[in-house]
Amino acid sequence: MTISVDQQTSTIKSDKAYPEELPLANVILEDRFWAPRIAVNRNRGIDIQYKQLERIGAIAALDLSQPPGPLPIPHSPHNFVTPVMWWDSDVAKWIEAASYSLTTHPDKKLESLVDDVIARIAGAQQPDGYLNTYFTGREPQKRWTNERDFHELYCAGHLIEAAVAHFEATGKKTLLAVLERYLELIATVYGPNPGQKQGYPGHEEIELALMKLYHVTQKPKHLELAQYFVDERGKQPHFFDLEARARGEEPAKFAFGTYEYAQAHKPVREQSEVVGHAVRAMYLYAAMADLAAELGDAELRAACERLWTDLATKRLYITGGLGPSKDNEGFTVDYDLPNETAYAETCAAIALVFWAKRMLKLTGDGQYGDVMERALYNNVLAGVSLDGERYFYDNVLESKGDKHRFDWHPCPCCPPNLLRLLTSFGAYIYNANSSQVSVDLYVQGSAVFEVDGTHLKLHQRSDYPWDGKVSIKLELEKSAQFKLRLRIPGWARSATLKLNNQAIELEPVVKHGYAELERTWQPNDEILLEFPMPVEQVRAHPSVRADAGQVALQRGPIVYCLEGVDHKLPLHQIILPNDAKLEARFDSRLLEGVMVLTGMALAEELSGWDGSLYRTESPNLIPIQIAAIPYFAWDNREAGEMRVWIRSQ
Amino acid sequence: MTISVDQQTSTIKSDKAYPEELPLANVILEDRFWAPRIAVNRNRGIDIQYKQLERIGAIAALDLSQPPGPLPIPHSPHNFVTPVMWWDSDVAKWIEAASYSLTTHPDKKLESLVDDVIARIAGAQQPDGYLNTYFTGREPQKRWTNERDFHELYCAGHLIEAAVAHFEATGKKTLLAVLERYLELIATVYGPNPGQKQGYPGHEEIELALMKLYHVTQKPKHLELAQYFVDERGKQPHFFDLEARARGEEPAKFAFGTYEYAQAHKPVREQSEVVGHAVRAMYLYAAMADLAAELGDAELRAACERLWTDLATKRLYITGGLGPSKDNEGFTVDYDLPNETAYAETCAAIALVFWAKRMLKLTGDGQYGDVMERALYNNVLAGVSLDGERYFYDNVLESKGDKHRFDWHPCPCCPPNLLRLLTSFGAYIYNANSSQVSVDLYVQGSAVFEVDGTHLKLHQRSDYPWDGKVSIKLELEKSAQFKLRLRIPGWARSATLKLNNQAIELEPVVKHGYAELERTWQPNDEILLEFPMPVEQVRAHPSVRADAGQVALQRGPIVYCLEGVDHKLPLHQIILPNDAKLEARFDSRLLEGVMVLTGMALAEELSGWDGSLYRTESPNLIPIQIAAIPYFAWDNREAGEMRVWIRSQ
Repeated sequence: MTISVDQQTSTIKSDKAYPEELPLANVILEDRFWAPRIAVNRNRGIDIQYKQLERIGAIAALDLSQPPGPLPIPHSPHNFVTPVMWWDSDVAKWIEAASYSLTTHPDKKLESLVDDVIARIAGAQQPDGYLNTYFTGREPQKRWTNERDFHELYCAGHLIEAAVAHFEATGKKTLLAVLERYLELIATVYGPNPGQKQGYPGHEEIELALMKLYHVTQKPKHLELAQYFVDERGKQPHFFDLEARARGEEPAKFAFGTYEYAQAHKPVREQSEVVGHAVRAMYLYAAMADLAAELGDAELRAACERLWTDLATKRLYITGGLGPSKDNEGFTVDYDLPNETAYAETCAAIALVFWAKRMLKLTGDGQYGDVMERALYNNVLAGVSLDGERYFYDNVLESKGDKHRFDWHPCPCCPPNLLRLLTSFGAYIYNANSSQVSVDLYVQGSAVFEVDGTHLKLHQRSDYPWDGKVSIKLELEKSAQFKLRLRIPGWARSATLKLNNQAIELEPVVKHGYAELERTWQPNDEILLEFPMPVEQVRAHPSVRADAGQVALQRGPIVYCLEGVDHKLPLHQIILPNDAKLEARFDSRLLEGVMVLTGMALAEELSGWDGSLYRTESPNLIPIQIAAIPYFAWDNREAGEMRVWIRSQ
Repeated sequence: MTISVDQQTSTIKSDKAYPEELPLANVILEDRFWAPRIAVNRNRGIDIQYKQLERIGAIAALDLSQPPGPLPIPHSPHNFVTPVMWWDSDVAKWIEAASYSLTTHPDKKLESLVDDVIARIAGAQQPDGYLNTYFTGREPQKRWTNERDFHELYCAGHLIEAAVAHFEATGKKTLLAVLERYLELIATVYGPNPGQKQGYPGHEEIELALMKLYHVTQKPKHLELAQYFVDERGKQPHFFDLEARARGEEPAKFAFGTYEYAQAHKPVREQSEVVGHAVRAMYLYAAMADLAAELGDAELRAACERLWTDLATKRLYITGGLGPSKDNEGFTVDYDLPNETAYAETCAAIALVFWAKRMLKLTGDGQYGDVMERALYNNVLAGVSLDGERYFYDNVLESKGDKHRFDWHPCPCCPPNLLRLLTSFGAYIYNANSSQVSVDLYVQGSAVFEVDGTHLKLHQRSDYPWDGKVSIKLELEKSAQFKLRLRIPGWARSATLKLNNQAIELEPVVKHGYAELERTWQPNDEILLEFPMPVEQVRAHPSVRADAGQVALQRGPIVYCLEGVDHKLPLHQIILPNDAKLEARFDSRLLEGVMVLTGMALAEELSGWDGSLYRTESPNLIPIQIAAIPYFAWDNREAGEMRVWIRSQ
């Protein structure tokens, strides 16, 4: 295995058996769905979020200007920690997002601002390499004392991701060098040897960051530390117990009761249920998938696949949201998917995209692409308003009208997480290596590959997700032999495939959710894919209590919802007949252009109740007009009710 | 108007235009529903609750043995008050219950225990008449400083009720004298004159207690103080504001935000929406009904009627529960009746019975009897386990299996409230005066009246609530002219009435929900009433979001529920067809004997899902057997799910 880093284009050329995602710089978006949306977030979000980080003091904190002493800001249920403990990670995610933006849209002013922030971070690094503004500035005596609850390694992880992104965007090693120095210290503190802590993060993150770093540096120690953190997790004697006793605390008094909260209840290779804090879980599983791929570790891959099946078949919202409970910001029990109280943190859906992307690379199986797509088009996008200025932290699937996006949040993890995902969105569309190109998402635009020793520029033409027709044209310097893998979305009941206008039978070529076409391709070969997009009524498994007797509307990858503003009746009074005919119509003036579903449904007649609250007569049903909008676009007009799951009849 | 108190029988003979409830001693219960249930609570509850009051220190506190100083026991959302502040009221309710028990079931040992507790209360009375163990013992400087939040007048009210019950049961004035002395002090502190506080209780209770006391003492000052407290309420400048400023506090910082919490947002005569803390509201409205009757006050009666209509048509659970929210232990907005999070405090349903009884006396209208019956047979009875040893504070209409009755509660208001209602249940069956007898509830047994100058012993024979046939036989010394009023329950779709085996057309004689038979009655006249009791599917008003698409089962006055223990499937998977045939069958071995409803319903087939969580296929429905039990009897077997509202099709 050889990998070389080309700092000019930041392209990683790999001869691994499994494909890599395509470098961000190689992908151009030209569609009317993602491109303008990403532009809004890039143009507004980077600026807004920097100002917010300045306003709350997270930027000033880099200068270690915080007054010493603990800062207990109540933040239920973490009333023993403060968001200030993870400000470094929020700044890091902003740097990461800004770096992705610099990759696709160079901007000297922004680059200079990033350089300035990085210089302040470098200035906060201690002589021994330690880097955490909260613990250096406020509680130096607590350094490395409580990884279970505090967020030192988590912050380090985000700073590593930022450093890698900044290096790949600019070729500058300014932040990378700081983090490599910090990692030298971390590697002396944590590890298998006597005198080291046999420990790992309470909040996973650094593991996947180390894998990113390893891909850039190729230094085995980074891979090894990631592997150590992952495999040490959940072993006995338990690190969190030892750590608590060292603090003079009773381990059993852990605020969240069980180490499932941090997926540390047993070694990761033995785990088969997604448990605990959802973001933590997704970051861990993403790192496990990276490691399984890097090491060809079948046992770790099997654990990932078990955990995935558990999530996808029992614990995933139709929107791609996950982690239903506010109490642990995470998972509860099978089929527990409440709508009105759904936590479904934006960060969790983003982290699921990270995991899904890695599973897709690891296995090439379309089921991971399906979930990645579901999360991206629904829960993730709902996390930010259409104007790119307001954010959801939790993403309910039903609201009485009391849920609204916030300008900022006391625990500001989601906004910069969204920003780094959106600014790097181009990297989620393809996987490739020298012998194959996988098209995982359909987005109009182009991408450049090196395949079979030649250059390929692949052009997608499509109005996806509003329309299921996709044209793919191969711009090749010369004919080339490679496998082209085209994802057949799980939502598609049927599909047609044509190569240079000749129909190809799908059944023989579809494997694991991809149409695989392996041949010698000629310049200007053109593929036409078509996925019919009827409006579909989706039902949840009967074990899902919250969705009983209800249906959700879906068209293509888009999950719909009803909003109060479009209806004269409270939404719980709307009943959708099984045979309802709903028409899809693009409304360019509504919500910056969305496909709206309209048609007739039923409602119980209100007359005849005569002031009574209960009665035995069967209700009279009357026809009413309904209109459903994409879930991601809700709460962008006046305040009101919202409902994904609609009463069915 | 003349009323004389006969201390021997504690009978109040009245010549008022409106009837009085019959004294408890005059009513004998001989049915198989109430009589054994009340016996269990009398025999077990009085003893258990005394021991609990001893255990928590409420009895010892009467000796002013508490250490001085505030005792902040967190009790969300009242984290500025402690249940100890209202221990006096809990002891008082126990005395009241014990006194009712002494009325119907004399018991020297219990009487002596009651005397002992009363002696300790008398010993706690201060030289100036003040009587509150918390403020005397712990925070004497706070006496009369915060009626908005603390519970001094509330405790006084319960002690007055106890004193009246004790006097009526035993003829002893020991407690009555103590409370009359305390009231002399209270009447100097509160009142319209300069130097007095123009105030009233934060937690209403003393108003209805004063009305009871007035009925016993006939002292106008007791009536006048009740009237003062009721009419001063909500006036400007606002007492709670003045009180807060006197404490140096900002009035706006009231923990519950609005004085609606205590029904003090405007004068009571201007109120038309039931708001705030539900128990407070019911106690106030009960006193308003008492005053309206006593004073012939049409304006106050109209306010009561407006408030009643608001409650009964928009804010009442099908179980007779009320006050859906835990946050304010009370009301929210119209049609907000969530099932799984229903607060529906046992005390609130009990207090509704108090109000309903008074409205029934005031108006003679059967709608009040209907709600009284609904609350009694459902929410109230659910408040205590069949063995009389465990209690519900809040009464949900749906549970995942995590709700169970408690042995005791940090705020132990409900258990003794239940006990005093059950031990005085006989007083809720009839209203009467010299010219009319109203039968408000159907309970097998007998009752003695003085009517038209003679003695009437009325015998009821019935298996109500399991069967709708009622025989009423009049044992008269001689013929007598009076109006016999027989309640036609609102749930009865039809009814038949026979007098000495001759059918009587109901339509001409039914007025305001009562069959009114005015004639010269002969000894041994016999009336037969029959109310068919089909199993009925009840629907809630379409505006009730929580019940959309669902039905509740009711038979006669009994609301049913499904329990997990009787079903193989989770209850949300059960679908009741509109035309389901459910059979009622008495099972003497189940839950101490209940009418069970059994029949076939439908459920979605679980096979065919093949590990998927969402799909577009319509579900296959398969028949399943269901069994519904009375709601009041739930959670008396193994822990599990419960559901009143069932999916309908």
